[in-house]
Formats: sequence, structure tokens, C-alpha cells
Amino acid sequence: MKIVLSQINTTVGDIRGNTELILSKIALAEKNKADLIVFPELAIPGYFPGDLLLLDHFIDDASSALDTLIKSSKNLSIIVGTVRKNESIYEKRLFNSAAVISHGQLLGFQDKSLLPTYDVFEERRFFEPGNKQFLWHIDHLKFGVTICEDIWLQGDTLKQGRYRYDPVSELAKLSPDLMINISASPYSFHKFEKRIECAKRASKVAKCPFLLCNNVGANDSLIFDGKSFCLDLKGNIQRSAKGFLEEDLWVDTEDVKADVATPLDLFEDLYQALVLGISDYFRKSGFKKACLGLSGGIDSALVACLAKEALGKENVLGVLMPSRYSSSGSLEDAERLAKALDIKTHTISIEEPFKSYLTLLSPIFKDCAPNKNDLTEQNIQARIRGMILMAIANKMQMIVLSTGNKSEYAMGYATLYGDMCGGIAPIADLTKTKVYQLANWINRNEEIIPRNTISKFPSAELAPNQKDSDSLPDYAILDNIIKAYIEEYQTPQAITKAFGYTKEFVDDVIRRIHLNEFKRKQAPLGLRVSEKAFFAGRKIPVVKKHF
Amino acid sequence: MKIVLSQINTTVGDIRGNTELILSKIALAEKNKADLIVFPELAIPGYFPGDLLLLDHFIDDASSALDTLIKSSKNLSIIVGTVRKNESIYEKRLFNSAAVISHGQLLGFQDKSLLPTYDVFEERRFFEPGNKQFLWHIDHLKFGVTICEDIWLQGDTLKQGRYRYDPVSELAKLSPDLMINISASPYSFHKFEKRIECAKRASKVAKCPFLLCNNVGANDSLIFDGKSFCLDLKGNIQRSAKGFLEEDLWVDTEDVKADVATPLDLFEDLYQALVLGISDYFRKSGFKKACLGLSGGIDSALVACLAKEALGKENVLGVLMPSRYSSSGSLEDAERLAKALDIKTHTISIEEPFKSYLTLLSPIFKDCAPNKNDLTEQNIQARIRGMILMAIANKMQMIVLSTGNKSEYAMGYATLYGDMCGGIAPIADLTKTKVYQLANWINRNEEIIPRNTISKFPSAELAPNQKDSDSLPDYAILDNIIKAYIEEYQTPQAITKAFGYTKEFVDDVIRRIHLNEFKRKQAPLGLRVSEKAFFAGRKIPVVKKHF
Repeated sequence: MKIVLSQINTTVGDIRGNTELILSKIALAEKNKADLIVFPELAIPGYFPGDLLLLDHFIDDASSALDTLIKSSKNLSIIVGTVRKNESIYEKRLFNSAAVISHGQLLGFQDKSLLPTYDVFEERRFFEPGNKQFLWHIDHLKFGVTICEDIWLQGDTLKQGRYRYDPVSELAKLSPDLMINISASPYSFHKFEKRIECAKRASKVAKCPFLLCNNVGANDSLIFDGKSFCLDLKGNIQRSAKGFLEEDLWVDTEDVKADVATPLDLFEDLYQALVLGISDYFRKSGFKKACLGLSGGIDSALVACLAKEALGKENVLGVLMPSRYSSSGSLEDAERLAKALDIKTHTISIEEPFKSYLTLLSPIFKDCAPNKNDLTEQNIQARIRGMILMAIANKMQMIVLSTGNKSEYAMGYATLYGDMCGGIAPIADLTKTKVYQLANWINRNEEIIPRNTISKFPSAELAPNQKDSDSLPDYAILDNIIKAYIEEYQTPQAITKAFGYTKEFVDDVIRRIHLNEFKRKQAPLGLRVSEKAFFAGRKIPVVKKHF
Repeated sequence: MKIVLSQINTTVGDIRGNTELILSKIALAEKNKADLIVFPELAIPGYFPGDLLLLDHFIDDASSALDTLIKSSKNLSIIVGTVRKNESIYEKRLFNSAAVISHGQLLGFQDKSLLPTYDVFEERRFFEPGNKQFLWHIDHLKFGVTICEDIWLQGDTLKQGRYRYDPVSELAKLSPDLMINISASPYSFHKFEKRIECAKRASKVAKCPFLLCNNVGANDSLIFDGKSFCLDLKGNIQRSAKGFLEEDLWVDTEDVKADVATPLDLFEDLYQALVLGISDYFRKSGFKKACLGLSGGIDSALVACLAKEALGKENVLGVLMPSRYSSSGSLEDAERLAKALDIKTHTISIEEPFKSYLTLLSPIFKDCAPNKNDLTEQNIQARIRGMILMAIANKMQMIVLSTGNKSEYAMGYATLYGDMCGGIAPIADLTKTKVYQLANWINRNEEIIPRNTISKFPSAELAPNQKDSDSLPDYAILDNIIKAYIEEYQTPQAITKAFGYTKEFVDDVIRRIHLNEFKRKQAPLGLRVSEKAFFAGRKIPVVKKHF
């Protein structure tokens, strides 16, 4: 039996466009004599539609789209992820389902049983869980269908509560020949290894080979990496699709040939994830061009590299905005980078508007008591830069790329409405440590990011001889705390003990993390690449008593 | 039996402070010979702690706080809302519970059964539902406890799915003498009537009198209105606490005297809600002073009135920032308002920085193709004003109040990083229609908001002779669509039919609502006063295919 795992890049809410994409893949599969074609979780509405699911006409449209797909299945079978109404008057009004279609007939629905409601997932807001596994029969093949989270109980990664019902064990009782999982499993660093591990265990429990068709493409903060695959009875990967691209992966159940496994380069993977995150943001919102401030520092250099790869060099504009505090080295580093990337630049000094604001405000400020934490003048500079970038973007129909990283976001070491301006913040989920690692990966064969940009002390250059280390802990130490406290939910006590930092120091870092929630509340969309991002899947009140 | 419903104003996350507040109320109740004191839902951790609930030490602290309260109960009984661990290894790790304490003993917990997971509520992210109702015995009184949503199945307002389990019917089987509900039920326009209606039905089903102790105070976007009450067997309100203030409501089960019911003035209620929203935002984040731009228009006038009431006249600074497009009338209206409110003002012309930006950008802009939707120069003016307000706020340790209303937010008729700057947006959930109504309510006895501010055509004054109606539909029409589409989830077809607008027009308004999600993503915290706000409890993807 010839099965196609069609990992497609859908757009959230675009039921018509997604259906056309699915139909084109069906036509191709049919032409090439496939018996069954499989699409990802929620392929019809896109993943994740959020409160669009509360609109009746949206659900009706998804239902009509399914009818169209059923009609197109005369010569083959289809498994496709969609939403369906819960006919009971009780509890949530929808199921997250896989429609199983064969030769013009809807055989039925397999509802998702395990509904993730933690981190970035909010499925219990919309869906009622399924509570029964079915065995499907198509052309002598007996198979079961699971949807994404349904297999994750097999992993040891479910920190936020363990489900009581186990769809994989239930399915095992039906002795399937094969398990097919349709997923919308987002990328994070190391995620693929975890996904494979879950699949291997699920395959072992169900005692059958295993196919997984994953979503690909980015929507808002989530980047889906694709990498659909097929496991044989021994749990070996037999075939796998590319990461971060649409692909039809063909699997012949009678003639499985082992792929040569290509080891995953974690930083190449991260790079591709970020590039896809940027390019899908632009394509799906109908924009082509980006601008960003080039400071000569490593963050903006990294974002420029990613943007060039995602959008093409002709679509990226670097804006150099020196101030009285900029070192000449910074301007040279920025120019060198722009030359290496072959992107256009403009240089605009912020000195005139800076002076103009200081003059304008001096009558008001002259009576103010001096304030030792006063960052007003630093913020004014950052906000002039934000203003210039936004004006250029408005005039030229561009989107501003915000260049802040996760370590800065943690500490609030960024100016709201200044360097936090932008439609998307590509590296907002990369700690400074990861920023350096990825920059070095980009430079692995040749110097693209200037060596000086990588080797110099990080500085915001908003005050004379300023260094990040004047007001921030050493990044290596800070990043340890971010990982332990934010990503791993460790207690301050455990962190103090694990790293040997003083309690006062750890408490102060955590206090600053909480204190700066108000800035992150207004931050641009970031691209999620860790297991716990600040801007998606983290619901911390702004107003609260800090720890 | 003397029961005290202690509606207290807790701070999210401040377990120590909340516990001290609770202890002080217990001491007072004990002194006055109360038999039982009742506190609101999640009084110990505050409502709603969000992902703080995922931190082990936070749960441990809540548990220690409960131990302290148990020790303080030697001479009376206590019902208090808190979190407790789920001892099962399965499913969510916590329960949302009422601890029932009597004379130094923890009698047990009543877990919340109905966990709202819609709109602003995300309780299934954290909690496992309870599935059993208990009858508690204290001093010859047999009573049941329900928690907030547990009674809302009795209302007809549950649009997002109907629970199968009904705690009130279950409780009825135990024939209680009394039902006590502890709530954290947020304010919205008309909410109190709905809450009373639910309570009456619950009381009727359980065939017993009913007490409700509600949370009071604002946390982030949610404003809790208090208004705790007691219903007799006939469903009449016997006693009720004030709205928007802490109060200990004393109820004697042997001697209930009917209150004289004071009819609720809906606009007074709305006014008090917004004032509390502002004052709690400042107090709980440790700020005292606010500044805002006074344009002479109705939105900033309304926000200034609310801010003065919330913070005191000495803590509100009005900043007048005329441009070449400002009418002289606007400046006069703003000055007249400031005089009526007796608040300090500064006047700063934005002409100099505006010219300076135009000059700075002209070399870049000179080659740009003209663009009919080009709002660059208008946005620059709004952003200069944002910059000035932020600089003043930074220097003087103030918080900027953002003055946008719901109709503007819907259409994106606001400049990101411009007039959308601020820590809190007090009227972001008021349509322009409501803004006028509330302004007229404020002026009911004397002219505080200048008559001209209310009567003139709304204008952003960012271009010559500009009026809002140049680019927006008539506000009365727009506000109908916002109410129908956003608050009531009506289909475009139904809206077309109900109001007689053309399909093209309705579709265009809805398209613009969706298109501007990117701005609302970065908006300041708003205060929620409708059943569906844009900024809280509405999860719409930014990048999507628009309808």
C-alpha cells in the first residue's frame, strides 16, 4: 500500500486556501497512484485558530471544506485534520478530529483524546476530549489514528500533569497493523529527538510500525518543523521528510527501504527554524520588505543574517543610527556586516532630534529631583531610533524587525517603544549565549558577522563608555538562571544550591524578571524556539507582588 | 449564627500580604463575636495567579499560609479560598478549593467543580475539577460550599459549553440549611443583575438561603466589584455589601433584616469600576503619579476625570502637545478641562521635533513612490507625543495613561508607539458610544468636561481639517457591529440582516478589525468592563487570512 505523508504549510484561518493546497496534493498523489494520503492536525483551519473557533461560520466553512475533500477522494483514501461539532449539548462544542475518508465516503472521525492545555497550548478552551480509539480498515490494512499529544503520554516530558486515559494502550488492544499520527508539533531546540523517542515508545506499545505526518510552517510565535517520518517495527526511522519545508513523503508498506540517517545539526536546525519563522510571518501577512537598526552589535547582526536568508538581500534595509555615544568601531562593524550581506543601508544620526528633545524638555526637567535610576535620556535615544525605523517602515511598506534577545527581555534591558519596536522579534527566545553560538555557526566557514562584533564587550552605547555588564550580571550566569527558573521551573533555593550563587543574587535576578513583565506585555511577536518562551505560553500577571 | 462575608482586596502573588489582611479581618470578626468568617475564591494567592501556580514554592507558600490561618481559628470558623495539591499522579496538579476551618481544625476542602475555561478564564490550564459536594456541620448549621462558576450553570449565560455535572443539584440532595458561595466574579456592565439571577436560581434549586462573598479590587485587566450579598429563602436580597470597596458584611442567620435595596446606577457603577481599575493598578505596582496627553477631545478628557478620582488631583499631570494641525479650540478645551479638574499641565509644541524628523527623513523619502494610504507623517506626530509623555513619565516616576477607546482599537485608529503608549489604557473597553454616555454622566450636575469637547466632531487633528468620519464609519454604526461581532459572536450575515447594512460594508469593518490585531497585540493593559474585551480573554492569531 502506498501512503503519502503530506506535510503542508497551512495558514491559520485560511480555510479556502488550505483546502486548495490539500486538493492540489491529493491530485498529485492520485496521479502517482497513492492509496492513502495523510495531512497534519487541523490542516483545514490551520493550527492554531484560537478564538476563530468560536465563530459559527468558521466551523461551517471547515465542514463545507471537508465535504469538498470527500468528493475529491474517488480514487484514494484521505486522513485529514479538522474540527467537528460536538453533537452533545454538554461540555465543549468541538472536537479536534482526524477525518478518515475513502473512495468518496467519510468513514468517520477519530477524535483527539489528549488535549494539551499548558504552555502554548489551550485546547481545553475549545475541545472536548475523545474517549475511544477506532480501528480503520482500508484495502486490507487495519490501522489506528492518533493526533499529536495522544502519543506524548509515552514520553517523560509531560511536566504539567499526566493524563489518565492512554489512547496508545487502548489502540494496542485492537492489534493494528499500523499507527498513523497526525501532528501539529512545534519546533524547539532538541524537540525532534523527543518526538522520535515518544513515537518509538508508542510504536512499541502498539506493536506496529508508526507513521507521523507533522505540520510545517510558522504561525505567530510557533514554528512547525515538519520532519514527518516512518518507524519500522524495531523503532528504526525508515524514511523521513525534510525539516522546515513542504514535502510529500512516500511510504510503501510492502517495500520499506531504510533512509540513510543524516545526523541533525542542532544549530542548522535552529537557523532554519528562525528563517522560516521570519519568512512565513512576512508571506502570510502580505509583506515583502524588512528594515532593522544595525548597531554594530551581535544581536542586530544575527537578525540581519536571518532576515537576508528569509527575505532576500534586496528586501532587507539596514539603518545605521549613530549617536554621540556610538563608538566609531560600531559604525564600521555595521557597515562591514552590511557589505558582507550585500544589503542596502541608510545612515541617519540621531543627534539633532536628541538635542531637540533635550531642549524641549529642559524647562520641565529642570525642577526634577535627580534620580539615580534615571534612564530617561537613554530611553529617548532608543525611542528616536524606534521612531525613525517605524517612519521608514510606514513610508516604504516594510516591517521593522526587533532585535532583542531573551536575556535582555528577561531583565527588561530594552526600551519599550524604542528598540522593542517591530512587527516581529526573531531572536527574542534566544539567550545571549545562544546568540553567540548561532553567530559562530553562521561564521563557521567564512567571516560574515564581523569578528569584532563577536569579540567586543556587549554595549547599548546609550551613555559614555557603557557596557551591558555595568547593569546586568555576566550573561553566562544570567542565562543559567533564565534556563533554570523560566524553562525548568526550579525554585530559587534549588538554583542557589545548583550553581553556588548567593541567595540575594538569585532573588534579585528573579525579582527583576518579574518586575519587567510590563515591558514584555507590549513586546512584538517573538519566535519560540525554546521549551518556554517569555511571549507565548507564559501567563504571568503584570501587576503582582514580586518575589 | 453570626457570619461575616469579608470581601477583601488581595494582590495577586502576595501570599504574605494577603494572609496578613485575612488575619486582620479574622481578629476583628473574633473581637465582634462572629461565628464564621468567609473570604473570597483564591483569597490566599489572589485571583488570578496564572503561571505562578506552576511554581512549587508558590504552592508551598500557600499551604503554609493556610496552616497559619488554621492556628488563628481558635474561637471561630473560617472559609477561605486557596489552591491545594492534587495527590493523584493523574491529570492537573492542583484544585481550586475552599478550606473549611473550625476552632483550630481543618475540616476539609470543597473543590471547585466547574472550571471556567473561556473568555478571560483559564482554570483548566491549572486545575482538576472537583466531583463531589460535601455538607459541612458547624454549630448546628449544615451548609454547602460552592465556588463561583459552580452556580453559573443556573444562569443562561454560559455560551461556551454547558457543564454535565451540576454541583448545585448535587448539593440539593444533601438538604443544606444554607449555601455559601465564594467568588472571584469580575465586573462587567450589567454583570451584577446576572450574578443575582444565578444566585436566585441556585438558592431555589438547593431550597436554602444563599450567601455570596465576592472578591473586590482590580488585578491587571480584571476589576472585581465585590457586592457580596445574602438571599433569603424567597430569593430576596437581605443584605448586600458595597461595590468596589472592601467591606465586612455581617449576616445573622437568626435575625435577618431586609436592606433597603438601592437601585444600581449602571453608569455610576461603570465609573467606580474604572476608578478602582486605575487606583489598584497604581497602588499594586507601587506608583502614585500619572501623566496623559490632553488633546481637547473627549477620550483624554474622560481619562483625566477618572484619573483624578482614582489618584487625586495632585497626582495627575496633563500634557498639552499642540501641532500645526491643532485647532485653537482644542487647546482651549484642554485648558478648560484642566482648570475644572484643578490638575497641573505642561504645554509643549511638537512642531520643532516634527520638522526635525521631516528634514532628517527627506533624503530617504524623496525617492519613495507616493502611497495613497500613507500615514507616515500622521504617525510621526503621534509618536512624538508618545515620546514626550514617556520621557516625562520616566523622569518623574509616573505612569502614562493611554486614552484609546474600544472603537478605535477595533479599527486600529491609533498609532502604535504613539497614542498607544502607556502602562494602562483605562477606557480601552468602552466604545465611543459609551465614552459619550459616561462623559454625560460625569457632567450630570455641572460642566466638568467642556461642552464643546462633547459636542464637536471627533478628530485626531493629525492632518488639515481631519475628522474621524473621514476614515471611520459613523461611531453609532461601528459600535453596533463591534457589539454584535465581538461581544455576541454574530455572523456577518446575521449582522447584515439585523441592521440593514450592506454585506460589503460589514465585511469591510470585520476585515479591518482582524487586520489590526497586530496593534492590539502590543497594546497596554486595558480595563475590562464589557463581556468581551479586545485585550483580555480574546485569543485571535495576529498572522492569519482575514475574513
